[in-house]
Amino acid sequence: MAGQTIGRKIWAISDGHIPSWSHGPEPEMTSHESLSILNASPVVAHVELNVYFSDRDPAGPYRITVDPYRTLHVRCNDLSDPEPIPKGVDYSVVLQSNTPVVVQHTRLDSRQSQNALISTIAFSD
Amino acid sequence: MAGQTIGRKIWAISDGHIPSWSHGPEPEMTSHESLSILNASPVVAHVELNVYFSDRDPAGPYRITVDPYRTLHVRCNDLSDPEPIPKGVDYSVVLQSNTPVVVQHTRLDSRQSQNALISTIAFSD
Amino acid sequence: MAGQTIGRKIWAISDGHIPSWSHGPEPEMTSHESLSILNASPVVAHVELNVYFSDRDPAGPYRITVDPYRTLHVRCNDLSDPEPIPKGVDYSVVLQSNTPVVVQHTRLDSRQSQNALISTIAFSD
Amino acid sequence: MAGQTIGRKIWAISDGHIPSWSHGPEPEMTSHESLSILNASPVVAHVELNVYFSDRDPAGPYRITVDPYRTLHVRCNDLSDPEPIPKGVDYSVVLQSNTPVVVQHTRLDSRQSQNALISTIAFSD
Repeated sequence: MAGQTIGRKIWAISDGHIPSWSHGPEPEMTSHESLSILNASPVVAHVELNVYFSDRDPAGPYRITVDPYRTLHVRCNDLSDPEPIPKGVDYSVVLQSNTPVVVQHTRLDSRQSQNALISTIAFSD
Repeated sequence: MAGQTIGRKIWAISDGHIPSWSHGPEPEMTSHESLSILNASPVVAHVELNVYFSDRDPAGPYRITVDPYRTLHVRCNDLSDPEPIPKGVDYSVVLQSNTPVVVQHTRLDSRQSQNALISTIAFSD
Repeated sequence: MAGQTIGRKIWAISDGHIPSWSHGPEPEMTSHESLSILNASPVVAHVELNVYFSDRDPAGPYRITVDPYRTLHVRCNDLSDPEPIPKGVDYSVVLQSNTPVVVQHTRLDSRQSQNALISTIAFSD
Repeated sequence: MAGQTIGRKIWAISDGHIPSWSHGPEPEMTSHESLSILNASPVVAHVELNVYFSDRDPAGPYRITVDPYRTLHVRCNDLSDPEPIPKGVDYSVVLQSNTPVVVQHTRLDSRQSQNALISTIAFSD
């Protein structure tokens, strides 16, 4: 596998929004957003997230590490350092990594009794 | 952060359609389409939208500004100058910006009691 | 607008599938797949579709024209020449155009009482 | 058609997750993930999948062949050699092919009575 890396070092998601309420069994059906980060490279991925808002300065960096040949699914609801991401607020995320990774963004919106699920490969230059 | 810009200057969404009716609590669950525009650059983004239809000349330009290091979520339902985008009609959008931005397109369709949510990174050359 | 074209000349969608039944008011809530084709160029787009299956030779070409500065939303359910696309069968589509276009693929699946909606920008080399 | 190939040789999906339970008529409404692989090239596609996890070494390679001018929709639930992909666990997938293919990833999540459907074009460098 070594040498067969795939991915990019910088990624962005513009449509971030953690729904402000939920419906259904916890924690699987709690409204949330997650970032799936695949590190198919042979080195540890040191990932920095910066979060952009509509009416204030960006928050961050949030620091995440992903081991070699591993994937990590991060719930944005759980990010707390340097500060939690508020619910019900629009935001965007930029990720930077020292090694190529692949990033996908998923939202489960269970505000109504019907859960809605969206998922997109993040944008990379 | 300055210097760490990400994005492109021209974007397109071909599958535009504001659903013609809604179901659920207003305004969060109103059927709508939105464009999420991230400006991670150090300068103001001046964005122009042109809207294409199946049976008439394009409308626009609609002008939007996004401050440096900010994100803006625009509801297409709210665009009114030079003219509102009609509901229940297929359309496409082309965005042009003076500085690199990242654009994502989201639709909440609450025509049936079950809301459907789609979101895609827009196309960029 | 002329000169500000955006898009590519060849596109592919691998995950095609017209659901075999529907639930909800016709025709808006009929299970279907559609292709949204934006032609932001100053010339007529002559588009050819070829449809690939798992167990037989490809069908096509299906021929579609999109006027300059227009968008066209084609329901795959309605394609009939040279032959209709069967429901409940997996297929893929390759589109080729003489002028750059932007293609998005959308499926409304209303087989259960809850409609599911997916939409993706097609793949382009 | 020959000569009109489209696609890439390496693809990745970071957000893999086979839901652990289902709701609705089998097998159409069983929670599952699928990979749609279009081979529009004139040669047989020999595809290798490697599956990455959060807490163990990757599994694979899984070997799939797609005939020339054919599409194949693989249910991840059905992969068994060298080992099945566990349900309810986060994973990522990297696909490598000897000839250009187009890959799309779809999940039907029918854990609640309302089915949720997501689909994305996989990432390719």
